[in-house]
Amino acid sequence: MAQPQIKLYYKNVFADVIGDEHGITTNQFDDLAVLTSPLIARLNKQKEEEDSSTPYRKLPLRKDIRDDVKDMAADVKADCDTLVVLGIGGSALGNIALQTALNPFMYNIDDKQRSGPRLFVLDNVDPAQLASFFDWLEDGLGRTIFNVISKSGRTSETAAQLLYVRKLLTDKLGPDACKKQIIATTDEKAGTLRTIVQKEGYRSLIVPDRVGGRFSVLSAVGLFSAEMCGIDIDALLAGAADMDAKVSCENFKKNPAAINAAINFHFYTRGKKTSVMMPYSNALKDMADWYRQLWAESLGKSTDVKGNRIERIGPTPIRALGATDQHSQVQLYREGPNDKLFTFLKVKEFNGEIETGPAPRCTSDLDFLANIKMSTLLNNEKLATEYALLQDRRPCLTILFDKVDAYTVGQFICLFEVTTSFAGALFNINPYDQPAVELGKEATFALMHKPGEYKKGWTYRDFADEIRSRTDIDEEFLV
Amino acid sequence: MAQPQIKLYYKNVFADVIGDEHGITTNQFDDLAVLTSPLIARLNKQKEEEDSSTPYRKLPLRKDIRDDVKDMAADVKADCDTLVVLGIGGSALGNIALQTALNPFMYNIDDKQRSGPRLFVLDNVDPAQLASFFDWLEDGLGRTIFNVISKSGRTSETAAQLLYVRKLLTDKLGPDACKKQIIATTDEKAGTLRTIVQKEGYRSLIVPDRVGGRFSVLSAVGLFSAEMCGIDIDALLAGAADMDAKVSCENFKKNPAAINAAINFHFYTRGKKTSVMMPYSNALKDMADWYRQLWAESLGKSTDVKGNRIERIGPTPIRALGATDQHSQVQLYREGPNDKLFTFLKVKEFNGEIETGPAPRCTSDLDFLANIKMSTLLNNEKLATEYALLQDRRPCLTILFDKVDAYTVGQFICLFEVTTSFAGALFNINPYDQPAVELGKEATFALMHKPGEYKKGWTYRDFADEIRSRTDIDEEFLV
Repeated sequence: MAQPQIKLYYKNVFADVIGDEHGITTNQFDDLAVLTSPLIARLNKQKEEEDSSTPYRKLPLRKDIRDDVKDMAADVKADCDTLVVLGIGGSALGNIALQTALNPFMYNIDDKQRSGPRLFVLDNVDPAQLASFFDWLEDGLGRTIFNVISKSGRTSETAAQLLYVRKLLTDKLGPDACKKQIIATTDEKAGTLRTIVQKEGYRSLIVPDRVGGRFSVLSAVGLFSAEMCGIDIDALLAGAADMDAKVSCENFKKNPAAINAAINFHFYTRGKKTSVMMPYSNALKDMADWYRQLWAESLGKSTDVKGNRIERIGPTPIRALGATDQHSQVQLYREGPNDKLFTFLKVKEFNGEIETGPAPRCTSDLDFLANIKMSTLLNNEKLATEYALLQDRRPCLTILFDKVDAYTVGQFICLFEVTTSFAGALFNINPYDQPAVELGKEATFALMHKPGEYKKGWTYRDFADEIRSRTDIDEEFLV
Repeated sequence: MAQPQIKLYYKNVFADVIGDEHGITTNQFDDLAVLTSPLIARLNKQKEEEDSSTPYRKLPLRKDIRDDVKDMAADVKADCDTLVVLGIGGSALGNIALQTALNPFMYNIDDKQRSGPRLFVLDNVDPAQLASFFDWLEDGLGRTIFNVISKSGRTSETAAQLLYVRKLLTDKLGPDACKKQIIATTDEKAGTLRTIVQKEGYRSLIVPDRVGGRFSVLSAVGLFSAEMCGIDIDALLAGAADMDAKVSCENFKKNPAAINAAINFHFYTRGKKTSVMMPYSNALKDMADWYRQLWAESLGKSTDVKGNRIERIGPTPIRALGATDQHSQVQLYREGPNDKLFTFLKVKEFNGEIETGPAPRCTSDLDFLANIKMSTLLNNEKLATEYALLQDRRPCLTILFDKVDAYTVGQFICLFEVTTSFAGALFNINPYDQPAVELGKEATFALMHKPGEYKKGWTYRDFADEIRSRTDIDEEFLV
């Protein structure tokens, strides 16, 4: 069989499908081609530069990273029943998305469906959740690996989890347990977590330089848990490399990332500021969540590439799930304001199939559902929903997956990462920073009494007082 | 200890906190009170009418339903290790939300944390997911109860699941297995599923008349799985009844649903068309998903109460999760367009707690996180994020939970259901129907070759041809 692929299908955004008011006319599409084409060459050049702003594009070819990850997994896999990832944001979403996409739904529960350790990604500091989890883990603690992922090691949530695990392992299993059971994925040379690794003797993997969290899934950040859980990371990277070649094509009409970005840009600038990604596949649902971070953090900006104030930009990404959300969101999607662009993910051949069974004899109402494949029903629901949305003149894109496997998922990741780079260029903003996240981090530090320098020369006490004065409960407004 | 409660905190939507351009001025709030106050009396009257459009408000007091649910659960609990809900939309989201809120995170995995059967809610027809699930279930099939939930029985996804399960049980366990192991929750008298129940002898519970799916969680629809899994449904209903009294108060300033709806209405009409619900609690994350259906299906409308065309209405609800989404969405929420209203859910006392541990000696960077409670960190993150959003003049509401228990969750459900009724009245639309969902259902029927009457006198073949002509892949637009 030929190598399964993904493709972008974009006919149903055009004016001749959904009308001139909401669709893209041929002239507009030609204009988008003129606007976007020079960016392809620019991004290709950027990719090759020494100090490239897009080092993430080199990841699919980094054999050194792949080898490190495989060596580490080979070292620890035999003694590991449970792998726990401690990370948040870009240090968690890719791991979760790969696992949901490429391993069976019951992977953690059904031993016979597992080809590696159970995987839990703890991407919050919810005390009730963590208490329940560690209560369960107690008996299996000795055969658990903790992969703590943080570029700097100063991410409060991840660092707090690490302090808990470090104490737990030491208390329960002795002073050497951390060395054996903690693997840190962090900066190669500097930072808090690298210091701890060096002084306390943990094993470690590397977060590559200048690759932001949301672009890091194809580095050791995402690859280690994937490799541990039996995912074919060679195929994943090969798929990404293949797509990277496709999205380097300087012919706009053959470049799926350029077209995808141009279409998204067009609709945003014309008032469709919400971007719904709706997989018709449970396997792909967390890919939509991964995309949600990529899109929101990269494109939510109020300054241009030179740092000048501009009108605030930021499409709001939404993850949905077909057919489930037909019974939750489609009423709004069809009858509410026409302010959304839809991107469906559709799978041709699923990694599992069931057939219904005969219909009851007492009614003919369900005869049409007798002895059918569930994939037929699910894929017809996609067509039905797309049809209904098109009737209401809503623009629809589809990413077609021949199959959900490591190769096509690698293609998907690369397609949306590079689409994000193109979108950043079209909006003329920097898609690789996230300056607005800092204030909340600083405010948390102050509330947690972290010494240090705060703005306006404040101590943490001054800053904490300021935060409390803005957020303390005023009984007058409590009902 | 006093009964834990929830409260709405609404100071941080006002102009004196976030400025005149984005905040509500005192005059505007007075206007909202004048606009909303008469609706309170109207909704109270509606509640008591014979043919009330809000029969959901009577559910907390329906002792008959509660007794049916408890009797059924008592009958089957001893022989049930696994409970599988077959349902979608309003027949699934409430069940999932109650389970996530009120049972431990590891409930399905850790036998010692369970007080009832494992619970799986299969709310899709994904063939790979279902194949994985039923592959696991095989050995335990004899001790599994299937609760199939559909008012009519004609919901394609749920009916397809039922045909599969019916065959599976019969093939593996003999002709009487369905009678023993399927419990149908459906219309009392009519409909496809009621016919099957009667002819094939299944046990059944009742979906009450005229209660729409998204308002049905406090009927047998949501209560049966909750009761089976050890949730205190008396406390749940008592909490809802208590809140129903509060939201009946004719003094606007003492009525949390009226205030909540008025604030949401105000911001929507002033261009903040996105409504983010962001619990700082993993237990409450699926409550945000339940709310997402309630809000979208109820308020996404293009006709007024009399059926006249109006400008399309529909706030887009978004579920987020604190602190996790600080590392995914907050960049957009702060620096992107000021087009969102935020509703935080904050928990005072969590159902579980862990403390971090000592900091490493090799660095002082993490000293501030040493030996702290995770709840302190999580709740400080909420304050920090709220502070950061307020600095950027974004309006913030908070629902304060003294504790997440059955009583407060019951309060929360009632608060948002009645808020939805108030919002419908403010927008002058019917929040209880979902006409735009029909076309997609019909289109699915046609594609699945269901005989019957379609629009324009079409056969299913005609209609299927029409759908295909709109959605078939045109290679020219495939890249």
